[in-house]
Amino acid sequence: MADVLTRRARLLGPHMTTFYREPVHLARGEGTYLWDTDGRKYLDCYNNVPHVGHCHPRVVEAIATQAATLNTHTRYVHDGILEYGEALTAKFDHDLDSMVMVCSGSEANDVALRMAQAMTGKTGVITTDNTYHGNTAAVSQLNTSKVPIGGFQDHVKRAPAPDNMMPPGGTREGQAKAFAEGVKTAIAELEANGHGVSALIVCPYFANEGFPTLEEGFLDDAIALVRAAGGIIIADEVQPGFGRIGSHWWGHQKLNFAPDIVTLGKPMANGHPVAAVITRPEILTAFQEGFKYFNTFGGNPVSAAAAMAVLNVIEDENLVENAKDVGAYAVGLLKELQTRYDVIADVRGSGLFFGAELWRDGKPATALCDAMVEEMRNRGVLLHTEGRFDNTLKIRPPCAFGRADADLLAETLDAAFGAVA
Amino acid sequence: MADVLTRRARLLGPHMTTFYREPVHLARGEGTYLWDTDGRKYLDCYNNVPHVGHCHPRVVEAIATQAATLNTHTRYVHDGILEYGEALTAKFDHDLDSMVMVCSGSEANDVALRMAQAMTGKTGVITTDNTYHGNTAAVSQLNTSKVPIGGFQDHVKRAPAPDNMMPPGGTREGQAKAFAEGVKTAIAELEANGHGVSALIVCPYFANEGFPTLEEGFLDDAIALVRAAGGIIIADEVQPGFGRIGSHWWGHQKLNFAPDIVTLGKPMANGHPVAAVITRPEILTAFQEGFKYFNTFGGNPVSAAAAMAVLNVIEDENLVENAKDVGAYAVGLLKELQTRYDVIADVRGSGLFFGAELWRDGKPATALCDAMVEEMRNRGVLLHTEGRFDNTLKIRPPCAFGRADADLLAETLDAAFGAVA
Repeated sequence: MADVLTRRARLLGPHMTTFYREPVHLARGEGTYLWDTDGRKYLDCYNNVPHVGHCHPRVVEAIATQAATLNTHTRYVHDGILEYGEALTAKFDHDLDSMVMVCSGSEANDVALRMAQAMTGKTGVITTDNTYHGNTAAVSQLNTSKVPIGGFQDHVKRAPAPDNMMPPGGTREGQAKAFAEGVKTAIAELEANGHGVSALIVCPYFANEGFPTLEEGFLDDAIALVRAAGGIIIADEVQPGFGRIGSHWWGHQKLNFAPDIVTLGKPMANGHPVAAVITRPEILTAFQEGFKYFNTFGGNPVSAAAAMAVLNVIEDENLVENAKDVGAYAVGLLKELQTRYDVIADVRGSGLFFGAELWRDGKPATALCDAMVEEMRNRGVLLHTEGRFDNTLKIRPPCAFGRADADLLAETLDAAFGAVA
Repeated sequence: MADVLTRRARLLGPHMTTFYREPVHLARGEGTYLWDTDGRKYLDCYNNVPHVGHCHPRVVEAIATQAATLNTHTRYVHDGILEYGEALTAKFDHDLDSMVMVCSGSEANDVALRMAQAMTGKTGVITTDNTYHGNTAAVSQLNTSKVPIGGFQDHVKRAPAPDNMMPPGGTREGQAKAFAEGVKTAIAELEANGHGVSALIVCPYFANEGFPTLEEGFLDDAIALVRAAGGIIIADEVQPGFGRIGSHWWGHQKLNFAPDIVTLGKPMANGHPVAAVITRPEILTAFQEGFKYFNTFGGNPVSAAAAMAVLNVIEDENLVENAKDVGAYAVGLLKELQTRYDVIADVRGSGLFFGAELWRDGKPATALCDAMVEEMRNRGVLLHTEGRFDNTLKIRPPCAFGRADADLLAETLDAAFGAVA
């Protein structure tokens, strides 16, 4: 392993970090399990990219068959992208029936921001104060984890992210008002500095913000303010989308609002580099007229086939229902652990995106959370952290995660808390 | 077809144009051939993405096998990206042995521009006045085909692109000096407006500029000026790279200069969405310290396997040698046509990236070139146009293109010129 890490640091750079102090050297995956090069088996409780399970045979078959048949780009006509796009947009309301296929969630959000600019004639963007939306130069201006060289540009303003344990405004019930107040201030700043408001962009599950528990209507006041200022709404569904949250196909349905643009990414094709922007026809037209855009790999026949297979498997294997059922079951198991471990300050989540926030002595237990992640890895269960203080265990497994997997997760958490808490 | 085009315009937008007035509705590809849904066969003289031939069985097998085994991201350790990265960087000199894998050439150039910023502390970029480097918000500022909403930003300055028929400076021999003069002016403007020079970014084959015939050393004076001003050199090898030009693996080797950063894309994995940035270790480190960057799909095991298969096939099937041999043979056939068709003003190219520039009555013959592309399509040969006036037939087939393919191309060109010229 030492030799491999040396080669890796030389080739990929010393700052290309791995998960875990002892990195996991992977060899194989199947369903909700991964195996390392020594043959050790891990339960994968973290990876949302293999949405329908690692190496799902129907997705592999779709990729292999299409790759052997044809792979070109959309300057030619091909049925695959049409069949997929029509099936995908049928999952949306609000006239969201136009699509741009790209290769990554970053590319999707990069396009979405320009769509908002083309549609509104404005350039200001409002997001939260603890977020991540991707890694292009333009999109990384939204991220809060690191100030880029040259600092943040003044076209991005932030509203306070909701948070279960430390809610802006002081109470969970008051968070929607606090968020709307933040948006109102941001609008005033963007109008004063000449950018105006092109868009509010949020993950409707506030995944990177620590997936706080929010009620339907949480964003209504903020959205009304953005619309009144001439802006539109971008829902970044890269994490909650495709049924992960169990209650709905999309995060914006859970909060019950109508986005103008939806961006999709990671889980869309089970690991094949596929992402998309879904919007209304008039917004797509404004974008295409305002900016020249063509993506060579976007929507190629293999990408479309892989994504179509994922959509079909979600339906045929009832994975949205599974996410709802197993997620609720697992949250119940975590709540039981909470009765026995004082460090578990909060258990929350929806479907197969849930977790436990750890506090000790009235403070976020960041070091303990990190120790738990390592302990769990050493006990054969992979998960990671989230939240402003990285003190929340983030559990976001493939949606094929079953009740037996949840049992193993809970048993291992129990043993790990016993060992390190 | 009408129904398909209606569905396509509704889903993908009215401005998602296709090649050809009668679009080609594709069903299958193999080697240098494509078949449409009516079973009609086309010789593909245009697509560089299927670099080793459409649906090459070794690439398909590599994708299928790895997709069935494991597909995760580089927060875990996996051997595939190391083996590929080491094999790929072995193809470069100049200490270019660090790599960032991404999903598209656009992402690669988006990263490259930030690397230059991180390394130099400056933000100005110099490129040519007739270029394209990709489609992210940041990278599209370099492109000249459409002024984006809000206009071009003042951190991009342009030097006059070389051109066989209308060389800046008046003569082909004087172009290098004219380009260096343009770079000198751009440097002065960027220093005056406070950006300074972070990078000169060029395709070393000047592909979008119309692939003019250039001698070794063409960029030397311009590069010396950029370096003296504190900037670095980005070679966008998305089009010339991987041996296409026959004489060398990379375009910068043909012009004999040492880039600081090389970007790679389209042909890298024969259509699988894979791209990369190759640079020196200290530039990668500066980038990773200046900007937070992680690409979920970038360098995943399937992408690495697909790219590795392409590299192996290039070697095992001697495709660089083939590009050199068949390219020279095809250029010879085009030069023979030139003796018979006055409209062929110039035949040029290197390896399997060549073409013929059409002029009539002392003017670029744009309409004739367009008519030729349509006529060729109707006769079963796919190619397209390039250059400032779209009056050059651009021929850039899969690198498995053989002499018999070149014969068919030339015979069909002969017939098409006879019909429309």
